[in-house]
Amino acid sequence: MNSGGDDRGSRATVMTSPIESASELDAKDPLAGFRRRFLIDDPELIYLDGNSLGRLPAATVELVESAVKEQWGKGLIRSWNDGWFEAPERIGDKIGRLIGARSGEVVVADSTTVNLFKLALTALKQRPGRSRILTDDLNFPSDLYSLTGVVEALGDRHSLEVVPSADGINGPVEEIRARLDERTALLTLSHVTFKSGYLYDMVALTRAAHEVGALVLWDLSHSAGAVPVDLEAARADLAVGCSYKYLNGGPGAPAFLYVRRDLQESLTNPLPGWMGQLNPFAFELSYQPVADVRRFLTGTPPILSLLMIEPGVDLLLEAGMRRVREKSIRQTGYLIELWRQLLAPLGFSLNSPENAPRRGSHVSLGHSEGLGIDLALIREMKVIPDFRQPDNIRLGIAPLYISFSDIQQAVWRLHEVVERGLHRRYLGNAPVVT
Amino acid sequence: MNSGGDDRGSRATVMTSPIESASELDAKDPLAGFRRRFLIDDPELIYLDGNSLGRLPAATVELVESAVKEQWGKGLIRSWNDGWFEAPERIGDKIGRLIGARSGEVVVADSTTVNLFKLALTALKQRPGRSRILTDDLNFPSDLYSLTGVVEALGDRHSLEVVPSADGINGPVEEIRARLDERTALLTLSHVTFKSGYLYDMVALTRAAHEVGALVLWDLSHSAGAVPVDLEAARADLAVGCSYKYLNGGPGAPAFLYVRRDLQESLTNPLPGWMGQLNPFAFELSYQPVADVRRFLTGTPPILSLLMIEPGVDLLLEAGMRRVREKSIRQTGYLIELWRQLLAPLGFSLNSPENAPRRGSHVSLGHSEGLGIDLALIREMKVIPDFRQPDNIRLGIAPLYISFSDIQQAVWRLHEVVERGLHRRYLGNAPVVT
Repeated sequence: MNSGGDDRGSRATVMTSPIESASELDAKDPLAGFRRRFLIDDPELIYLDGNSLGRLPAATVELVESAVKEQWGKGLIRSWNDGWFEAPERIGDKIGRLIGARSGEVVVADSTTVNLFKLALTALKQRPGRSRILTDDLNFPSDLYSLTGVVEALGDRHSLEVVPSADGINGPVEEIRARLDERTALLTLSHVTFKSGYLYDMVALTRAAHEVGALVLWDLSHSAGAVPVDLEAARADLAVGCSYKYLNGGPGAPAFLYVRRDLQESLTNPLPGWMGQLNPFAFELSYQPVADVRRFLTGTPPILSLLMIEPGVDLLLEAGMRRVREKSIRQTGYLIELWRQLLAPLGFSLNSPENAPRRGSHVSLGHSEGLGIDLALIREMKVIPDFRQPDNIRLGIAPLYISFSDIQQAVWRLHEVVERGLHRRYLGNAPVVT
Repeated sequence: MNSGGDDRGSRATVMTSPIESASELDAKDPLAGFRRRFLIDDPELIYLDGNSLGRLPAATVELVESAVKEQWGKGLIRSWNDGWFEAPERIGDKIGRLIGARSGEVVVADSTTVNLFKLALTALKQRPGRSRILTDDLNFPSDLYSLTGVVEALGDRHSLEVVPSADGINGPVEEIRARLDERTALLTLSHVTFKSGYLYDMVALTRAAHEVGALVLWDLSHSAGAVPVDLEAARADLAVGCSYKYLNGGPGAPAFLYVRRDLQESLTNPLPGWMGQLNPFAFELSYQPVADVRRFLTGTPPILSLLMIEPGVDLLLEAGMRRVREKSIRQTGYLIELWRQLLAPLGFSLNSPENAPRRGSHVSLGHSEGLGIDLALIREMKVIPDFRQPDNIRLGIAPLYISFSDIQQAVWRLHEVVERGLHRRYLGNAPVVT
């Protein structure tokens, strides 16, 4: 990384005020100490992709050694009796405390896509006279793929209506409200959208869907551990979400699903398995689901990946989602302020909501040469954002380990890439994962 | 553990011949050295449950440290480009070499139950004029649960015919053949059945199903790494299987699925997801599956649990399935011989096939007080089998780490439990997992 050169003078002038405020903001940050709870080998690297894969909690390193050597290696099959069998509920309950669910409403299982399939399919069966699924085009593409699979499995008798966002940034709230009617079986949305970071009003939209008799399924992948969620207050019916983003559960860690308690017995798991069987060790040939949320479990969970979720969730519970959200809003607001001063003049657009209550914990900056900028940042500037087509450089803010100085530094480095044209050599060069 | 007492004299007489043969057999065992490739902390413990959860390979301990600290902790999101994204195919191809599949026919994904759901559902859609699924009552219960889910998802237009085994030990081969007709859409069986260890003739039954135009789906959970499988020679259509039993992939490690190459493009994944999308990083809203076996992938795989599969598979590839099978047949045969001499007189029945070509790599011994015996073995005798209702003590033989002496010792200890009545205090005492 090259820290400047002949244009250093002009940038230093512009940056005087933000430099001071970043260190001041860090000095009074009540969550600053949490950064030390993560394994960070290179303090110069600014990691702004915690919304895609969260960092490694230090406690996870100890846990994985114990899980492998002690629990698997020495405990062998006996470890199923010493915590493995209950882990989906136990860790699910902890995640539940982050998203406003009650104990017994969340389990960890499968992937987000598989869980969405399960819950959307059973939701449609619960609304037999209704043929419409409503979503938006800001939703994660694989959610739409999964919904397509549900429609096909049910014999193509449902339509999937994808309401477009007018600007690609804000959720089409009024259009969704207008389309909700007695034909709507299910409304399903990403609570925080993956590209722009738009944050839906869960309470209002859940109420609107309920008013026409539809069920609501929220994808919390970009919400859990990032913004406060209160499923109970919203009277949300169903939810799914991911544990490897802001929950810091590790690569591909299994997902979670939520079913409101009063719905659990009336909904069935379309993918029945032994983990949801009433007496799994009786090995009965006919499926008899347990009466609670565990009926939505299917096969044996990937124990190592499952157990690794817990330390990251514990950190968030310790920090408290109120404080996490306060810092996140200050940090994304600070980033937007720096964008306005330093990056907008270089052709960057803000592709996320400016209005804090409608913004999740990442900020997307658009640039016509965004992919090249993203690659130059990663390969030459020790900043890791990610990139989402067509032009979004996504800057994920995980308040537990991102400082205000990180954000300021990242903006400087972004500024430097474009000012010096470092991104030009990367144009047209697409990596597998960005 | 108490090694005898007043009846030592009589047992010693009986055991003279087997004692000698066990050490002789171990001395000339070409696979004996593989035992040292596993982490075995207590050499006195005889672990006969590798058919439920295989032991921890020593190489896995090193790999998990690297996967967590280096790949996740330091590599962060970049590790998706350094092997994670391709891991389902790469490890799938290695498993494929153990089961007679060609490169590009196997991927690692989800759980066995989810994979069975996917493949059975798409198989039924491929045979639209046919309404019957044929299986047997020796199949793993969760396979039946999954098939029930498939039938329900498709609107209850199919019937699931569960052909009973006459003796609970041997597969009802002739009855299955008699039921196969032009109404049969799918024949699906456990290649090796979980309770008795009966081993179906894959070639003959696949041919019989094909003769009436049905597809065949084999569950290889108790076969992979235990018995030779040649999917290509059998012209098998579809298969699923588990990686945490004889493959030693770790607790709940993700499962695998096989789709014969010429079927891949005509079958679709009922649970579509981004891992099977043609251009996953284009984030297109409409699902366009990749043309190969990866289309059967769904969501993000649990990377830690996934990567841990590889060392165990490598050990089996190094040992070679021919040698593994030779040792397995000698060992299960030896166990049956000891049963005949020592345990049959105490009321134990043989609940597995005596005929070696029809036997997998575990032996079930029946006893009316089987659960108590199982528990006494685990808690007082340092032998870990498992128990399957109503009366089966399952003794799993994983030839890579089980010696002939282990088998002999286990039989002695079983004999001692019953002779001394040690099991009586455990009757009626059911653990969560046995």
